[in-house]
Amino acid sequence: MFFHKQELQFKSVPDKPDAVYARKLQEVLGGQYGEITIAMQYGFQAWNTHIPGKWRDLLFGIASEEFGHVEMLAIMIAQLLEKDPNADMQATVDSDPVMAAVIGGTDVQHAIVAGAGARAVDSNGNPWQGSYITASGNLLADFTANANAEMQGRVQAARLYHMTDDKGVRDLLSFLIARDHMHQNQWIAAAQELREEGYEDLPVPSNFPLSDEVGDVAYTYMNFSDGKQAGEGRWAKGPTPDGKGEFTYHDGPTTTAPMPPPTHPDSRFYGTTDLPNMMEKVAGVAQDKLNKE
Amino acid sequence: MFFHKQELQFKSVPDKPDAVYARKLQEVLGGQYGEITIAMQYGFQAWNTHIPGKWRDLLFGIASEEFGHVEMLAIMIAQLLEKDPNADMQATVDSDPVMAAVIGGTDVQHAIVAGAGARAVDSNGNPWQGSYITASGNLLADFTANANAEMQGRVQAARLYHMTDDKGVRDLLSFLIARDHMHQNQWIAAAQELREEGYEDLPVPSNFPLSDEVGDVAYTYMNFSDGKQAGEGRWAKGPTPDGKGEFTYHDGPTTTAPMPPPTHPDSRFYGTTDLPNMMEKVAGVAQDKLNKE
Amino acid sequence: MFFHKQELQFKSVPDKPDAVYARKLQEVLGGQYGEITIAMQYGFQAWNTHIPGKWRDLLFGIASEEFGHVEMLAIMIAQLLEKDPNADMQATVDSDPVMAAVIGGTDVQHAIVAGAGARAVDSNGNPWQGSYITASGNLLADFTANANAEMQGRVQAARLYHMTDDKGVRDLLSFLIARDHMHQNQWIAAAQELREEGYEDLPVPSNFPLSDEVGDVAYTYMNFSDGKQAGEGRWAKGPTPDGKGEFTYHDGPTTTAPMPPPTHPDSRFYGTTDLPNMMEKVAGVAQDKLNKE
Amino acid sequence: MFFHKQELQFKSVPDKPDAVYARKLQEVLGGQYGEITIAMQYGFQAWNTHIPGKWRDLLFGIASEEFGHVEMLAIMIAQLLEKDPNADMQATVDSDPVMAAVIGGTDVQHAIVAGAGARAVDSNGNPWQGSYITASGNLLADFTANANAEMQGRVQAARLYHMTDDKGVRDLLSFLIARDHMHQNQWIAAAQELREEGYEDLPVPSNFPLSDEVGDVAYTYMNFSDGKQAGEGRWAKGPTPDGKGEFTYHDGPTTTAPMPPPTHPDSRFYGTTDLPNMMEKVAGVAQDKLNKE
Amino acid sequence: MFFHKQELQFKSVPDKPDAVYARKLQEVLGGQYGEITIAMQYGFQAWNTHIPGKWRDLLFGIASEEFGHVEMLAIMIAQLLEKDPNADMQATVDSDPVMAAVIGGTDVQHAIVAGAGARAVDSNGNPWQGSYITASGNLLADFTANANAEMQGRVQAARLYHMTDDKGVRDLLSFLIARDHMHQNQWIAAAQELREEGYEDLPVPSNFPLSDEVGDVAYTYMNFSDGKQAGEGRWAKGPTPDGKGEFTYHDGPTTTAPMPPPTHPDSRFYGTTDLPNMMEKVAGVAQDKLNKE
Amino acid sequence: MFFHKQELQFKSVPDKPDAVYARKLQEVLGGQYGEITIAMQYGFQAWNTHIPGKWRDLLFGIASEEFGHVEMLAIMIAQLLEKDPNADMQATVDSDPVMAAVIGGTDVQHAIVAGAGARAVDSNGNPWQGSYITASGNLLADFTANANAEMQGRVQAARLYHMTDDKGVRDLLSFLIARDHMHQNQWIAAAQELREEGYEDLPVPSNFPLSDEVGDVAYTYMNFSDGKQAGEGRWAKGPTPDGKGEFTYHDGPTTTAPMPPPTHPDSRFYGTTDLPNMMEKVAGVAQDKLNKE
Repeated sequence: MFFHKQELQFKSVPDKPDAVYARKLQEVLGGQYGEITIAMQYGFQAWNTHIPGKWRDLLFGIASEEFGHVEMLAIMIAQLLEKDPNADMQATVDSDPVMAAVIGGTDVQHAIVAGAGARAVDSNGNPWQGSYITASGNLLADFTANANAEMQGRVQAARLYHMTDDKGVRDLLSFLIARDHMHQNQWIAAAQELREEGYEDLPVPSNFPLSDEVGDVAYTYMNFSDGKQAGEGRWAKGPTPDGKGEFTYHDGPTTTAPMPPPTHPDSRFYGTTDLPNMMEKVAGVAQDKLNKE
Repeated sequence: MFFHKQELQFKSVPDKPDAVYARKLQEVLGGQYGEITIAMQYGFQAWNTHIPGKWRDLLFGIASEEFGHVEMLAIMIAQLLEKDPNADMQATVDSDPVMAAVIGGTDVQHAIVAGAGARAVDSNGNPWQGSYITASGNLLADFTANANAEMQGRVQAARLYHMTDDKGVRDLLSFLIARDHMHQNQWIAAAQELREEGYEDLPVPSNFPLSDEVGDVAYTYMNFSDGKQAGEGRWAKGPTPDGKGEFTYHDGPTTTAPMPPPTHPDSRFYGTTDLPNMMEKVAGVAQDKLNKE
Repeated sequence: MFFHKQELQFKSVPDKPDAVYARKLQEVLGGQYGEITIAMQYGFQAWNTHIPGKWRDLLFGIASEEFGHVEMLAIMIAQLLEKDPNADMQATVDSDPVMAAVIGGTDVQHAIVAGAGARAVDSNGNPWQGSYITASGNLLADFTANANAEMQGRVQAARLYHMTDDKGVRDLLSFLIARDHMHQNQWIAAAQELREEGYEDLPVPSNFPLSDEVGDVAYTYMNFSDGKQAGEGRWAKGPTPDGKGEFTYHDGPTTTAPMPPPTHPDSRFYGTTDLPNMMEKVAGVAQDKLNKE
Repeated sequence: MFFHKQELQFKSVPDKPDAVYARKLQEVLGGQYGEITIAMQYGFQAWNTHIPGKWRDLLFGIASEEFGHVEMLAIMIAQLLEKDPNADMQATVDSDPVMAAVIGGTDVQHAIVAGAGARAVDSNGNPWQGSYITASGNLLADFTANANAEMQGRVQAARLYHMTDDKGVRDLLSFLIARDHMHQNQWIAAAQELREEGYEDLPVPSNFPLSDEVGDVAYTYMNFSDGKQAGEGRWAKGPTPDGKGEFTYHDGPTTTAPMPPPTHPDSRFYGTTDLPNMMEKVAGVAQDKLNKE
Repeated sequence: MFFHKQELQFKSVPDKPDAVYARKLQEVLGGQYGEITIAMQYGFQAWNTHIPGKWRDLLFGIASEEFGHVEMLAIMIAQLLEKDPNADMQATVDSDPVMAAVIGGTDVQHAIVAGAGARAVDSNGNPWQGSYITASGNLLADFTANANAEMQGRVQAARLYHMTDDKGVRDLLSFLIARDHMHQNQWIAAAQELREEGYEDLPVPSNFPLSDEVGDVAYTYMNFSDGKQAGEGRWAKGPTPDGKGEFTYHDGPTTTAPMPPPTHPDSRFYGTTDLPNMMEKVAGVAQDKLNKE
Repeated sequence: MFFHKQELQFKSVPDKPDAVYARKLQEVLGGQYGEITIAMQYGFQAWNTHIPGKWRDLLFGIASEEFGHVEMLAIMIAQLLEKDPNADMQATVDSDPVMAAVIGGTDVQHAIVAGAGARAVDSNGNPWQGSYITASGNLLADFTANANAEMQGRVQAARLYHMTDDKGVRDLLSFLIARDHMHQNQWIAAAQELREEGYEDLPVPSNFPLSDEVGDVAYTYMNFSDGKQAGEGRWAKGPTPDGKGEFTYHDGPTTTAPMPPPTHPDSRFYGTTDLPNMMEKVAGVAQDKLNKE
């Protein structure tokens, strides 16, 4: 169960309205790596988890904080929109280039659809979607997904930090950037603890029998481009991070197979096939019809 | 530039057609973490990269291999569909429960739309979409995204391995699982090398000034759930993985702020507001009309 | 069957082209509550309806009018685009700020994709989609959906009315706003008639046996936030609109249940589970392989 | 801020796993009218609201309850999937028609992607999306949207009730159906209170000046179909629900206008136009090139 | 304007309900090449057209017929669903394999969402979307799009014809297949007439000056694969269909250029760059901060 | 298999950065008819083809070239973004109208999400999706789809040519326009060869028995609009392009059927039905419950 408290985790008040910036801020609310993604991702991981105790606690504890971040951003956006210039646009385009320019940078659905309110969309107005989240049930994979999400989110927030000089907005971003910093650390630590406690290991998933792999390609870099420099990286020589092998380097594939011949599905799919077969096909259809009558 | 060779990297021939399994295999072709995602993600990272040499080589080298994996899976799916039972469905539902059951498990668009061919969709028929990929320009974030993608992809391939006993399909999966194994190792190694060579560090992005964070919340676990066990994890005490702080634990938020009052946008957005304002609003519209006339 | 007449229901000619406004007008053509939604929604309700006579007549009669509104808006947008400034954009950005600003506010796909034509998208360029419509077969629910759609549509048209001073555009909007006014009234009246004639009643659906509800929570406001003022509304005390109960107010849930323990699916899904189980899992996989051989 | 408690509002434990039903239950979790929609819709309405006090309280109070319903359904689905038959599918299709049939009815992404976990999708696997929600800032419109959402949701839950005989699942649905019953009543009551307290009235929005409508069409039923029975409904005669007019009935449009001539955009959009113009166009392009040189 | 007549263009009554087939038939109603696509595509082409007279007539005349096909399919689907087995599913899965198999092949949203009604989706339940349609304003391109749409649609209908033996359904398909036959002919004829009357020619668009092309690559087949047989086709030798050149064949690209160096965007985008630059970047940010203070 | 070479097929270097134009160029990279569509479409047609030899060669040869076009456009866009003005936006809106106007025309996700990099989206930021491609297995239909795609793509590139005066960008477009010119010719030639060699013919699919069509409507223009001029086109009289009939013209439908009565699905779907039935329904539910107990 979730309970709501009519306070915010941190002050979220802009110095002044700024509808252009409101549009940009939508990215970290409703974008691929926005707070809705983060909150929902941790929520579904918690609901689907197969281990109780501190792991499920961790997921619930942070998921719930993130729903509060969704709220802080939505409220900030609504405040930034309090003077949406689209309200009296008709008077301005021809006479006031600055106003016209500002309007060009806004999300017009903020005005037309939401009446100067926040929306569950990204900075280009694409609706948030459930396919942004990851919850596979394998926690080493999922914690890596979480670390990535916090990194991408922090990169985006840092970029947004420089796109405004509004003190109130920057304060909120400073707070969110710090929390993303914390959460990066925490998911990396959680991934380490999973490995240390023996729940999972590299490669993920760790209990698929390695003997079922085509073993000789599991540690070989195969280069399908014409550059040679990639052979110099630590991904091409030395021990592998999973501690189970040594990287080798090979220019191009190590094995090839002939391309299978084209398929010949049932003639009633009306695909184009080679001629003799097509004749059979026509006959087959006729025969088929006869059979049915 | 890309050049194509009419061979495959590995044998991709099933023992027998299996339209139900063909549908399932679509997940690792056109799903969120399917091969189209992987190939496109590495491609866009390469095209957008800001560092040349071994890093761009690496991205090109693997992207190109992955386009070949797209091809292997598409060809395998076409072969699995060679006897799609939808071709003569009408005769079977009532009389043959096994056939009817099989048909229920197929992707009917394989038959109706593609005529027994592979499609750029996942195992539920959702079209692949560009929002599945990640290419932020920050390589430590992006290599983490890549590691996650290879983990999720290997988990899915491992699950699919158990959903068939077709030797040809299993051989292909054994190959792909081994390559995912390799690529997990390689992106983790690449992330380490980025840090060792000083390109990036934790937290990502590493050159956003930490002094611009709200510093006292960057290392604190704040618990918004009622469980207490999460306080026992290494994400709540001890040194942080970025080497820059010590985790602390706090039950609940460390700071709060009052919720801002509701916004009052322009009356011409026709939102519902408190009464005195609404009266002004009606008057304002009238005045506005007068002004325009 | 539908028949087309090459006239419009109302004059739809703008005073002058305005590509920026053309983009905004797309919202009421191809947005969530645009005319395509309205026309398709009433159409599908008509095709799916289970009662003939005046009810199906009503749905066909209005659906058909709304397809004409789709046409009026598409034609208006094409006219507004007749001087799309993107045609000679390259000369203007640096030298003419007003022109540059105007271009910033246009939908560039109007120019690049449609060659100055209307599109089946909203004001942010999101394609219209079938998931916008509602046709459940339960007419009291659906007429309520229709009333909502006409309200949202009229709010949006009213907002758009103030974003232009083009007399021709405003005339068209005045017409559409009046029709939305009519249709709000009419769906509300239709909902009332459904109840009066005994087809449906509140709660919807009205013939699900109330004895199959957990009865003691069907009339209780449960407050999951920390505000107390919601207890003062008529939604928290007095008779309920369905005429079947009395509202009561309760601060928080009236009942709770322990959270179920985590699930333990088959080990071949490679989820992360608690340790003893994982050991079994590894053994199980091995055993499973033996069994198959 | 949101706080989480590791209890559920109501017992959510099925008698036995049922992966086919788990797929169906996804509709009321992640569908157009599922609990994610409901929770997010009330959340965004609260964050965007322009009136404080009991109205905002109401939205927060119920939004928060609905996030708990998301959780209950996700956990129920995870439990229903605890024996997902896809785990050992390969052995069964040919030999066991019942098992094959069951598998045909499951969501295969439950198995392949989520490892027997719930997902943010509907019963056909379409991801939830932000465009399902409505938050216009006009509360009479939005409360009507909410009443509709609770009606559609209750209809779906009632249908699902009959698709299982699992006592645990039915108990949960009985609870959710009762809450939908409550919430239908409450949004209807809230809409009435908005009107009684003078915040909004019909038609929505109520303070758009009626004098700006094309007035003679605001109360006329125009029939664009060939049925005559719709003229008998209360939507075609008698006083209108907004109390401001009388319905009249008219067979067909009351006004028409000639269709505007085709547009002739700039020749550089390369549209097909009538011949003389095209000649000018070719010349124009040539001239344009000369001018630029 | 559109007017509706409560008759169908052709009989649309199935012999018996068939919920599995209803799902399949959704493809030609709401799929990529379904009737909604066709009707909307011709509608938007008509509304956007730049030439009046017979061309606009043609588009209106067929668009309007196609809206009637949408209706026929929707009504047929509703009839096929009249005995949707999901209504009493709970009794059947374990005891009746045939019934269970049937249910596995249905679209469960037909039952849960639409109450046994048609929906604006394809055979996998993906909502129809505006991005399926093409209306570029260039009629030679668009008529080619239309010819393709009628071909794909007829292929799909022909496939569906074999998936049922219901006489009523087959009759409807026989009618629709015949109309697709007609419309293929007609769009090909219309494309020819456009060329003969001088409106457009190959290559499309025909009045882009050929002198602005890189001319030496406009008639050369460049082979980027390792097969040699494509050099034997008429696309690699002889006169080109546009009557303006001769095909030539070249194995591989005719020209190459070095890959540009990586970009170095502003440091405030926090991308990963080569080391010296990164140092500047850090310094730059610091300087930037100083400048702002 | 695909192999990558770190060269481009043609020079792709702009004279100067231009973030506004970068957004527009996304259309031909990631739009409905962008290069990702083209490359993927030919790829899937190749993987699904049923005829080997020159046909499959052709598809592989061009698909592979098109992946190189994806790369050229992505790299061009990254270069155009090298001075994305969003990096220091906060200083400019109020003081510099030109800069503000420019920013209004950019894709802000280029800055926020990709850090000044290309993305897999169109010019309005809609993600590319798998439903853009066509690969039916019927090559006459598919080659027509390919011809259309090359036409639409060339129209868009020609429009874009006029929206910039950057010499480097125009050179690239001149190259791509020439290749689109080539590929239009080539798919038309391939379609002709398919017919000449007897693989397929009009109407597509050519081996569906014409005797299974409702024959008398296969050559009749039925006019559902009130214009008469369409009767003058060659699509309404004279021989049909398939060489199998003569066009005739008919004003309106040639046949009609009564609309079927409304359906009456199971009462447990809770649809609204006519009254007597509803009574039965309520009784039926009660009976049903009794039966189960």
